[in-house]
Amino acid sequence: MFEAKLQQGGLLKKILESVKDLVVDGLWDCDGAAITLQGMDSSHVALVEMLLRAEAFEHYRCDRNVTLGMNHNHLSKILKCANNDDIVILKAADQNPDSCSLILESKNGEKTSDFVVSLVRIDTDQLGIPETEYSAHVKMSSGEFQRICRDLSQFGDAVQITCSKQDVKFSSSGETGKANITLTHSATVDKEEESVTVDLKEPVDLTFALRFLNLFTKATPISDTVTLSLSQEAPLVVEYKIGDSGHIRYFLAPKIQEDEENE
Amino acid sequence: MFEAKLQQGGLLKKILESVKDLVVDGLWDCDGAAITLQGMDSSHVALVEMLLRAEAFEHYRCDRNVTLGMNHNHLSKILKCANNDDIVILKAADQNPDSCSLILESKNGEKTSDFVVSLVRIDTDQLGIPETEYSAHVKMSSGEFQRICRDLSQFGDAVQITCSKQDVKFSSSGETGKANITLTHSATVDKEEESVTVDLKEPVDLTFALRFLNLFTKATPISDTVTLSLSQEAPLVVEYKIGDSGHIRYFLAPKIQEDEENE
Amino acid sequence: MFEAKLQQGGLLKKILESVKDLVVDGLWDCDGAAITLQGMDSSHVALVEMLLRAEAFEHYRCDRNVTLGMNHNHLSKILKCANNDDIVILKAADQNPDSCSLILESKNGEKTSDFVVSLVRIDTDQLGIPETEYSAHVKMSSGEFQRICRDLSQFGDAVQITCSKQDVKFSSSGETGKANITLTHSATVDKEEESVTVDLKEPVDLTFALRFLNLFTKATPISDTVTLSLSQEAPLVVEYKIGDSGHIRYFLAPKIQEDEENE
Repeated sequence: MFEAKLQQGGLLKKILESVKDLVVDGLWDCDGAAITLQGMDSSHVALVEMLLRAEAFEHYRCDRNVTLGMNHNHLSKILKCANNDDIVILKAADQNPDSCSLILESKNGEKTSDFVVSLVRIDTDQLGIPETEYSAHVKMSSGEFQRICRDLSQFGDAVQITCSKQDVKFSSSGETGKANITLTHSATVDKEEESVTVDLKEPVDLTFALRFLNLFTKATPISDTVTLSLSQEAPLVVEYKIGDSGHIRYFLAPKIQEDEENE
Repeated sequence: MFEAKLQQGGLLKKILESVKDLVVDGLWDCDGAAITLQGMDSSHVALVEMLLRAEAFEHYRCDRNVTLGMNHNHLSKILKCANNDDIVILKAADQNPDSCSLILESKNGEKTSDFVVSLVRIDTDQLGIPETEYSAHVKMSSGEFQRICRDLSQFGDAVQITCSKQDVKFSSSGETGKANITLTHSATVDKEEESVTVDLKEPVDLTFALRFLNLFTKATPISDTVTLSLSQEAPLVVEYKIGDSGHIRYFLAPKIQEDEENE
Repeated sequence: MFEAKLQQGGLLKKILESVKDLVVDGLWDCDGAAITLQGMDSSHVALVEMLLRAEAFEHYRCDRNVTLGMNHNHLSKILKCANNDDIVILKAADQNPDSCSLILESKNGEKTSDFVVSLVRIDTDQLGIPETEYSAHVKMSSGEFQRICRDLSQFGDAVQITCSKQDVKFSSSGETGKANITLTHSATVDKEEESVTVDLKEPVDLTFALRFLNLFTKATPISDTVTLSLSQEAPLVVEYKIGDSGHIRYFLAPKIQEDEENE
């Protein structure tokens, strides 16, 4: 049997909101250590990987590894019925279940909602993500990153990210004009989550589709900060920590610059 | 002459919002004791009955009984011009007026809005609602009832309501899966309006169209609590009290279970 | 060179919101004393005139007069990237520039956004607005004026404004019925911006298209009060002060009453 009890249902709501627009059907792999979800968007350009360790749960029991094929739209409808402080319990039979069950309990114990969710069959191989040495890590406010991606979408389809020792620059251009947003590291910021830190091995200059970055920023409510890992040879990684017990990571290959100019 | 002055215009706004989506044109019967409104939805499946006693008004004068055929969309547009603490005065000539007048006065007396409303002719007989012995009365938070109806609408078109001595269960199912929401009576709740009480003569198990229940819950702002009266032989009654001086009651026949399964 | 630095970027956002739905492309005339914008709506019925004096800016330098043809939709997109307390700097080369630049600086200095805006060519003559003696000036809460225009739009396409010594009346009628909203001057109001003052030389009775008045009230966030200047022989003026250092004025010709009745 698999059974996992989460004290704060709101967390599962946020996780689902951050993956469902990118990946419709996803495989939730449950083993003794963690629940892992991996999936690609329908155009196979972006990848999301979610990890939630057993420690995140008040109660966690996994007798045998089980893989749950979830329709994220259905799951999202169910979680819309949850208050943020509802307890959420996920239950599934061993091996190849056809359905799993989700139980929501109100804090005062007066309201219990239980749902039977039909599972879907998904044929995908898990992708191994190779360890990569990145040229730059940028840690910044997740809200600021969301704001920048949304703002630049008004100007163009793509954003060029340029990192130097002192600052990180986001640029976009189109019919409306040309926009550059520059964030400078400052030691004098009071709130740690508002400061920008750039950890740079070598300068990078890469261009990404804003459409996907905007989907990634659906994870903003999960963490106050986001880390961008950039390298000329590897996909961008956009990572949101789930407290101390997990993360959501998005991967996106850069646009080839020549192609972009010919568009 | 008929003249009625309501200190809190917001109340009339709430009443109108709770009937206008169900009944487009309604007969407002004004006599010496109260204003009464009765109407059916266009498919003649649901009935609404509103009663507002003379005591609810700061000033109430009705020389002769008068019936006002109101277009609720027009009336709603007028009341959108009212602030919640505006004074509302409804005036009509005796017998068969072609129009009535509605006056809004701001609290500080600086703003007066008066409206002439053309009345509509409506040919309907008032339905006598027979006294019924109900098998179960469920009193619960009106907000919780609204939430449950809205949440279950994601899963199916109908809700099955099952009452036992201990609890009341709302169930719905469809493509997304199966959902059961169970409310248990508890004596330990601090706020009376949040507790659930079930007054049961015999167990009931009835199914209703969620489309209508969702329309009924437009009355949620009128009262913190709602009472459901259920019986195997009679329509469901959903009642919201208007303070101590009136009520809004909705009536809805249960769905025949066999029909539902054949749909 | 032209360079103007505004401490509160929010002000420029509000100004733009109040003109962009009326005038798509506008000429911003910058001279040593002020920035002036004048434009008509596409149907050439309404005119807007905005004046922002050099004193409004923390820094203002204009070596030579320059006229900037702005696409207000593009400018609005840029200003959506600004926080209300961002510093905004507008820069342009002398004489006939093809583009101008707009710089947003966050309060803490960590974020700088710069935009290059392509300028558009606009062929319009500046209209001289003749000095007029008005029969009536009505000063009232800008929020109340917005509310009245919006409320009356539910009843008809036009509003009739009637001023007497004691009060000002806004009337509208249509299928829904007839609506009159009367504001009376009272000396007992606590908040000056909520009181209504009518400065009357002779009574006026004029009718205006609500569609335009509703566009004018986009300027409501700019000032707590609005002044209507009315005369039987001249267009209505709706004026919002920009603090002590400028204004937005809208001009609208009255509807000819006979025409209106024949519609």
